[in-house]
Formats: sequence, C-alpha cells, structure tokens
Amino acid sequence: MRIALLGGTGDIGEGLALRVLAHTDHEVVIGSREAQRAEHAAGEYGETLAEHDYTGHVEGAHNRVAARSAEMAILCVPPYYVRDTVKTISDGLSADTVLVSPAVGMRRTDTGCQYDPPDIGSVTQLVAKVAPDDVPVVGAYHTIPAGRLADLSLEFEMDTAIVADDAAAKDRVWGLTTAIPGLRPVDAGAIANAAGVESVAALLVTIAGHNEDLHDLAIRFT
Amino acid sequence: MRIALLGGTGDIGEGLALRVLAHTDHEVVIGSREAQRAEHAAGEYGETLAEHDYTGHVEGAHNRVAARSAEMAILCVPPYYVRDTVKTISDGLSADTVLVSPAVGMRRTDTGCQYDPPDIGSVTQLVAKVAPDDVPVVGAYHTIPAGRLADLSLEFEMDTAIVADDAAAKDRVWGLTTAIPGLRPVDAGAIANAAGVESVAALLVTIAGHNEDLHDLAIRFT
Repeated sequence: MRIALLGGTGDIGEGLALRVLAHTDHEVVIGSREAQRAEHAAGEYGETLAEHDYTGHVEGAHNRVAARSAEMAILCVPPYYVRDTVKTISDGLSADTVLVSPAVGMRRTDTGCQYDPPDIGSVTQLVAKVAPDDVPVVGAYHTIPAGRLADLSLEFEMDTAIVADDAAAKDRVWGLTTAIPGLRPVDAGAIANAAGVESVAALLVTIAGHNEDLHDLAIRFT
Repeated sequence: MRIALLGGTGDIGEGLALRVLAHTDHEVVIGSREAQRAEHAAGEYGETLAEHDYTGHVEGAHNRVAARSAEMAILCVPPYYVRDTVKTISDGLSADTVLVSPAVGMRRTDTGCQYDPPDIGSVTQLVAKVAPDDVPVVGAYHTIPAGRLADLSLEFEMDTAIVADDAAAKDRVWGLTTAIPGLRPVDAGAIANAAGVESVAALLVTIAGHNEDLHDLAIRFT
C-alpha cells in the first residue's frame, strides 16, 4: 500500500519512513506543510536507505496531496498541530484511508514529564472527532523511540499498543507493525482506551530523565 | 529490616511476602484488620516457603501492630481502603518508617480498564497527604503481577518504577527491589510523577483482556 507520513520531516516520521522502506514493499510519501521540505526529506531518507543497501520508493508532497494519495496516513506531527493537520487533509480522506495517530500531549514539569491530553481524553480521540465520520482512526506508535527506528544499524525488541474501533483498520496497522522486525503490536482495544496508551509516552520521558542507563526508551509487555 | 505488609492477606501481599522471604533476610509481618486472619495467612506463606525449601521469618498481626513494629510498611490494600488504613496506622509511624504505596485506582469500562485516580492526582500522593508529615512515602510495585510473584517456581524479568520525594526512603525500597531476582527498580522521580506510573497498571489490565497470549502482565523499559 501507499503510506503518507504527514509531518514526516520530523523525528518519528524519519524513523517510520526508514523502517517501513527498509523492511516492507510499501510506498512511502513524506508530507509537510511545504512540499519542498517534504521532497528534501524524502531525498535524504532515500540516501540513508542506500547507505544501508536498502531500496524503496519514497517521495515528498504537501500534506494534503500526500494524504489524498495514500491508503494509510500517519499523523507524525506534534500534538498541537494534529487538529489543523486533520482539517487540512480531510477532504482527501475516505473510508478507505486509515488515519493513524501516534502523537501525545505532554508537558515538562519540575519533576518530570506529565501526560497532558486534550479535553476529549486523548489525542487519538481528538483525531477521531475531527476526522470525517467514515474515516477509520487507529492509535499506534506512541511509545516507540524515533532515534532507534531511524538508526537502521540497530536491532530492538519493542512493543506498541494499538487502539481502534474499526477492526479492519486495526488489522492493517497490525500488519504494517509486524512487518518491521523487532516491533510487536499489542492490542489495547478501543479508542476509548487511548489515554492509557498515550500516557506511557510521558512516563518514558520521565524515566529517561531519571536513569542514566535508560535513554530513547521503549516498552515491552512481558 | 522488618517489613509490614498491611492488608498482606491479599494477592499482592502474598506475592511480596513470598519473594521477600525467599530471597532476602528481612523479617515480614503480615497485617490485616483482623489479627487472626493475618496470623493464618502468615502460617500459609510459611508452608509455601517450606515447600520450596526456603526459610524465613513471617508472622501476622493487626495492621496497626504490624506497622508500628516495622521499618517499612507496604500498603497492600485496595485503593479505597488506603486512606482508612493509613489513618489507622498513623500513630505508630515515625520518620524512620518508610511507607510504600503500590495501590492503583482503576475502573472497568465496556472497552477495557481505565485509570481512575483520586482527586489529588494519584494514590501515592493521597498516601503522602494522609500520612504524618515526617513519614517518607514511596510509590512502588504498582505494575508487578501478584500471581507471578507468588509462584516461587517462576522466574521473570520485570521492572517497577519507583517515585519518592525522600531520597533515603527511595534508596531503601530500591535496595529491597534489587534483592528480588528478576525485579528491576527504575527511577521515576518525585511523587508528583506517580500518576504516570500508576496508570500503567490499568493499561496492563486492558492489554491482558485483549491479547490471548498476554496475561499476568508486567512491563520492561528497554
């Protein structure tokens, strides 16, 4: 399938792009608010892949164009851009587009990092509210460290908890996830459970800040 | 040291009692609202230990008596009993007693299990508020599955995130934790971060309910 990584010029977009391109046959289109920035990032990711002897089809486009062309659109934008991004791309989405939300609202405090969800309960639920009603929304990839994804020489064993109300959409994200070696999908049920998943991302930042030997943290359910 | 497991007749109390007794030289006193129930549980735990060729000193007492005699008191009670239990034992606590809070408020919903903290933000913070000001409070052991602790034939690799405002108290819980093989303490900073830690316990229940191969779940930070 064709996967749009909206805001894919950032860290998590880069990490997902490289792993998807390295380990699957899916096409990737990097999205940005500026098409030129997206094209530039796509070029860079292509070079990184080539350095590691991988090939893959990656291009860049404006977020709206990228989303319209894709069967799956992953919102790799900061949480405060999620609402605007979904509105920008909405007219190009359909019931055949799976919209994936990995963003997490968090705020740094004196003591660590605290989960700071929107009033509706979670970013994933916000995406589901703002997106057209027939577009299936999946929450995933909240807790996987971008840096470890982006370093193609690294192996890892990481879990990502997935929430969705639409079983077919969840299956498609599940399939994409299992295609990346070392990344294991874990079912966390419905979108109503998204806050519990998202909040782990803030805890990981807190823990990374308090433990010298734990950085770029991921989680495993054992 | 002497460790009181208040409400230690329940699942998490049994698990902690058995592991502490099997792997450390600490004394354990099981607490209950009824001394007789605590004594009965202590007898049973002693038998289980003997069956696995372990020895250890375990006795039972009323919660108040158990806490007064101990250098560390772990509140192995359901979250809705935490406030009453702390009030019951308060006059026997001192600045030399470390009070440990593993309880988590959660509520089952149609879709899973959601974190349901008290208004103050977390059970750990509630304990700190209700306990006498000079008693150091540590949040720990929220996410370790009681069943796996209690089965002494099982090996595991599990993390437990620890929060505290008092460094010396945190060190003592840290030391107890590292003494149990396979249990790794992870520093999550101050008690203000407790909600992030506690909420993972609810997520684990959600995930156990949605994945056939994942039960009695723990987490690892990797």
